[in-house]
Amino acid sequence: MQTTAPMESELLHRLQSLYDAMPPVAALQLVVAGFDGHCLRLHAPLALHVNDKGCAFGGSLASLMTLAGWGLVSLALWRAGLAADVFVAQSEVHYRAPLHDDLHASAQVAADASLQACAAAVRDQGRGRVAIAARVALPDGGDACTMQARYVAIRTR
Amino acid sequence: MQTTAPMESELLHRLQSLYDAMPPVAALQLVVAGFDGHCLRLHAPLALHVNDKGCAFGGSLASLMTLAGWGLVSLALWRAGLAADVFVAQSEVHYRAPLHDDLHASAQVAADASLQACAAAVRDQGRGRVAIAARVALPDGGDACTMQARYVAIRTR
Repeated sequence: MQTTAPMESELLHRLQSLYDAMPPVAALQLVVAGFDGHCLRLHAPLALHVNDKGCAFGGSLASLMTLAGWGLVSLALWRAGLAADVFVAQSEVHYRAPLHDDLHASAQVAADASLQACAAAVRDQGRGRVAIAARVALPDGGDACTMQARYVAIRTR
Repeated sequence: MQTTAPMESELLHRLQSLYDAMPPVAALQLVVAGFDGHCLRLHAPLALHVNDKGCAFGGSLASLMTLAGWGLVSLALWRAGLAADVFVAQSEVHYRAPLHDDLHASAQVAADASLQACAAAVRDQGRGRVAIAARVALPDGGDACTMQARYVAIRTR
């Protein structure tokens, strides 16, 4: 909707600033590439993330997916007008194919989870949790790797 | 044993050089802190790895544990005189407590797994796999986070 576009743009700018303010995240040189209301996309250049085999380092892939999920939860809380610390609590990553291209990560809420319910729990009980699904894509559209993770959000003053 | 110490020292130097040669790993500023024949230890300074909450970034913790496991498998293959590419295939990470101190990661073979069996499979069949357990410790000795992961090694020419 046209009326929400400026707010979305402001929130994405805020998210990029938060990423850039964390030293280990600034080192990843990630860029917030887009958010359609459901799926948050992040990019990072392969050149910074190559391993000894010339493909993307597993730790970089896991970091980018973890940050995409963290960003998705943060955006949902901001949109609900809430201030909270967001933590990743648990994650399972499957590395499915070597990636010889730039890193394109995306995150969305898991099939059986709800960001709205998480935000409501943060508002009403001070604490919420939510399951997120993230992936890094291969150039042909397949999965380089996938992640299932749980995040916890704790309301701040 | 005294006779193996120089070889161990050379292998740990080789491991540190491999880490430093990967741009995303060099950015972590990790140091190979020790290897007792079973457990590989890596350190990294907190200052480089702080998140928005002033504690260690989850992606850095996961990267350090992933690299500790990768190094442990690589050392086992080198000690067996084998050349192989080592990949992380799957990992599950539990973030248990915020870490406000330098990162001390360690990795050892999982209880039901064998690095010797993995090396034998690489030698005999060209490919092996092994389960690794890793953790990052809290200053009091507890767990900041733990990882269970599977690695695959594929013999190179």
